[in-house]
Formats: sequence, structure tokens, C-alpha cells
Amino acid sequence: MSDCVFCKIATRQIESYIIEESENFLAFLDIHPHAPGHTLLIPKNHFKNLSELPENLGEEFVKIAKKTAFLLSKAFKTEHFTIGINQGSLAGQTIDHLHIHFLPRFPNDKGGSIHSVVYNKPEEDLSAIYQKILKVKNES
Amino acid sequence: MSDCVFCKIATRQIESYIIEESENFLAFLDIHPHAPGHTLLIPKNHFKNLSELPENLGEEFVKIAKKTAFLLSKAFKTEHFTIGINQGSLAGQTIDHLHIHFLPRFPNDKGGSIHSVVYNKPEEDLSAIYQKILKVKNES
Repeated sequence: MSDCVFCKIATRQIESYIIEESENFLAFLDIHPHAPGHTLLIPKNHFKNLSELPENLGEEFVKIAKKTAFLLSKAFKTEHFTIGINQGSLAGQTIDHLHIHFLPRFPNDKGGSIHSVVYNKPEEDLSAIYQKILKVKNES
Repeated sequence: MSDCVFCKIATRQIESYIIEESENFLAFLDIHPHAPGHTLLIPKNHFKNLSELPENLGEEFVKIAKKTAFLLSKAFKTEHFTIGINQGSLAGQTIDHLHIHFLPRFPNDKGGSIHSVVYNKPEEDLSAIYQKILKVKNES
């Protein structure tokens, strides 16, 4: 994608602080960090979101995700991370190229958990929600 | 782990609303949902966090993660998700068995993004942070 900033980072048209790299992935520092060591892991090719990521890249993906977490844990002396994806604009995705946030967490950093992102309690009970999912499963 | 609730869900000692399953993974409804369709994806074996997940499960992991997102997108008619891991107690992990949250997102659900979890702006600039990471990299 000629106008995608993460594609340009992957091809080095835009400079970044690259901390890990493998054949198909790149991890680099977020330029607007929400924590010391805030890092983005991206596939080099333009996949919009997790749903577009080819399954055969899964092993390499887990490998570099683990390497990224390990490196950050040593550099910032913490085993605690928020790791997450904003998938789609309603989740806060602003660049349509899959990127996984790694946010090192520290005592008294005044942050929350993934749960603090949204509290939109369902009106239906779990059983009704489950039936809705099963219906889709049976139809597909 | 004999006292781990997610191990018990994996072995069916505790009932759950299972929506997807593969040889080594299971996706089921969170019993305290923060959104309609709030789902947890776990490895059946007791791995504490992403760093313990064997790399050779990566392909199966990406495959079931994509299937889970697809199923939820059809059932709840949204392409938008917060997908994330609370890794470690300081990130809000309360059950020490790797679980990935899938939170379907909707218009006007009053939620934020992964960025809203923490805003702990680093005191050092990116260049200094990068040097700290490179130092660890060169020593390892």
C-alpha cells in the first residue's frame, strides 16, 4: 500500500527504532508512547487486521512476539505487559495495517486492564448470547 | 494445574459456553462479559502467559483466533474488536493461565482503545529508550 505509514516503516522509506525483526515481521518503538518501551509489532506485508494474517505465519508471529516481550522485559525490568490489538475504527484502529501493541507495565503507573477499555454489559444473559452464536455456527 | 479454573474449563470439570475448539485451544464466553460476545481464547495446557506458549502452536493459535473473530463478527454483526492480553498482575491478570480477550465493539459503546489502558508517558526520549534496548540486545 503506497500510502500506508507502516508499509513505509517495513520498507525503510520511513525510519523507525526497530528492536526486533524476522522475515515477515518487524517490531519498533511507537512514536507516541503510552509507556516506556511501548512497541508495535507488525507484519511487513499489508494485512489490515488479524483476520487477514495468513495462518502459516503463526509460528513466526508467536516467536517474534515472545522475543519482543523478552527483550522489553529485560530492558525495562518488568514481566508485566498489556498486549493488544485495536481491530477496526470502533476499537480505535487508526492505521489499517495490523499492529500489536506491547505496553510494559509498572507499579503505580495508574493504568488499568484490558477490561478497562469498555464496559458495555450485555442486555441478554449468557445463555441467550450463546444461542445466537450457535445459530451462526450451525448456518455456516 | 489442579486448582486452575481455566484448566478445569479445558478438561470440562467446569462447564462453560464453548464457541470454538481445536486440538490445543478453546474459546468460551467470559462469565463476566464487558461486551456482548466477550470471549476468552485459551490454550488447553497450562501456559501462564504468551511467553510460555510453544511456538509450534502458533499456526493453530492464529487459525482459532481468526475463527473466533469471524464467528463473533457474524453473530454480533460487527467487524470491530478489542483483542488483548493482561500479562502479569500489574497489567490486571488475575488467572495465571494465558487467555486472550475478544471484546466485540459497537457504535456508542462508550469504550476506548488499547491506548486508554495506560498513559505512563516515558521521561526519556525515544532515542534514550532505544539505546537501553540495544544495550540489552547486545548483551544477550
